[in-house]
Amino acid sequence: MAGEPIVTAAALVIGDEILSGRTRDQNINYIAAHLTRVGIRLKEVRVVADDEEAIIAAVNDLRARYSYLLTTGGIGPTHDDITADAIAKALGVAIGIDARARALLEAYFAKRGVEATPARLRMARIPEGATLIHNAISVAPGFMIANVIVLAGVPEVMQVMLDDVMPHLATGKTLQTATIKLPRAEGDVADLFAEHQQMFPDVAMGSYPSFTEGRISTQLVLRSTDSQRLDAARDSLVLKLKAHGLL
Amino acid sequence: MAGEPIVTAAALVIGDEILSGRTRDQNINYIAAHLTRVGIRLKEVRVVADDEEAIIAAVNDLRARYSYLLTTGGIGPTHDDITADAIAKALGVAIGIDARARALLEAYFAKRGVEATPARLRMARIPEGATLIHNAISVAPGFMIANVIVLAGVPEVMQVMLDDVMPHLATGKTLQTATIKLPRAEGDVADLFAEHQQMFPDVAMGSYPSFTEGRISTQLVLRSTDSQRLDAARDSLVLKLKAHGLL
Repeated sequence: MAGEPIVTAAALVIGDEILSGRTRDQNINYIAAHLTRVGIRLKEVRVVADDEEAIIAAVNDLRARYSYLLTTGGIGPTHDDITADAIAKALGVAIGIDARARALLEAYFAKRGVEATPARLRMARIPEGATLIHNAISVAPGFMIANVIVLAGVPEVMQVMLDDVMPHLATGKTLQTATIKLPRAEGDVADLFAEHQQMFPDVAMGSYPSFTEGRISTQLVLRSTDSQRLDAARDSLVLKLKAHGLL
Repeated sequence: MAGEPIVTAAALVIGDEILSGRTRDQNINYIAAHLTRVGIRLKEVRVVADDEEAIIAAVNDLRARYSYLLTTGGIGPTHDDITADAIAKALGVAIGIDARARALLEAYFAKRGVEATPARLRMARIPEGATLIHNAISVAPGFMIANVIVLAGVPEVMQVMLDDVMPHLATGKTLQTATIKLPRAEGDVADLFAEHQQMFPDVAMGSYPSFTEGRISTQLVLRSTDSQRLDAARDSLVLKLKAHGLL
């Protein structure tokens, strides 16, 4: 397993409503936790407006730099949903009504007793060559083209789409985590912690302060794909903290 | 007021813990809503790791493209807090212990009865030429240099720092918003809504679906800096929706 490649990803959240503060994004954390669990490293997230130029620039920058790019938002039926067309432009492929997506939507509309209007069928616009991603909630599919995975913005729909696409992605070694909670300020442990990082350069170490009911506390977090090294780093850190009366 | 310039901003969230999914970001939405209220347009958000190269690249890209760049995270005392040094490198200025910040911290440490160790004084490392941003909670300051505003990652601290810096920023016309809630799918109103957007090209219109207890609903959101145009666009949209039995 030592030769297993590192699989990376970026996420691109598309939507004016996130940037205006009207809507609180719920997808970034879900995607981050999900990818981490399967051994894909989320390296960068961006949020851009419903603006074709901004989407194209971000898509082309991110898809070139990471194994996968996941996008959320902008694939509905209204005029402000421009993600599918922007992705097609970014990748330089044609886009039109996809026969498979159209069939799915027409069956769904027929069951709901609504007409398959041009607006509703906008949701069947899929770049040429894309694989559809199943939407178990509201049928209108996401899609994957090259290394770009295009998901809905509504969290429930994004989540079921992610479930559908995840089994098809390459994954790497999962990053294991050990956490030590201290009822102290970061400054109390900073020197000891920095020394410890130097002793274990292959184990990533971070320190996260928080305030709960006006009291400072700190979480020391150690991360490695090698559970033996992680255990060794954690155990010796715990010993040192105790020896200094910090834990 | 017609000649008032548009003031833009980007936010850069710095932290491995957001990308691993360990921590749910609470700053993006707060900053977005805060900036929108005072008439600063948040145009882009990025999240990057505690990685010097990634921070420098994002800082230099974003500070060049927007009126302001706000960063959160990475200004604590531990070895993984590298934001201040990365900002100094990005801007090509020197960094060292700042006398003003040092005085603030030493007074605070004396009161708490803790020693002013080198680790704790890391929080006084401020790029040369920066203005300090007051931290009413835990003293260690943020700073502003050129158009870059460097804030803490702990939400409570970020918020009091933002309160301190906001009065000093240029602001533009505030974007007014009107929202119409419909107990319907987006597809039901998409054609009518797209036509309405064409009639009011100066009023930005977006549509946001959501699922609540299994029921689809849609919010139509109109935005403009001109409240008369916004009212006109909303009133005529409401009339059209009613005429079509959609509201």
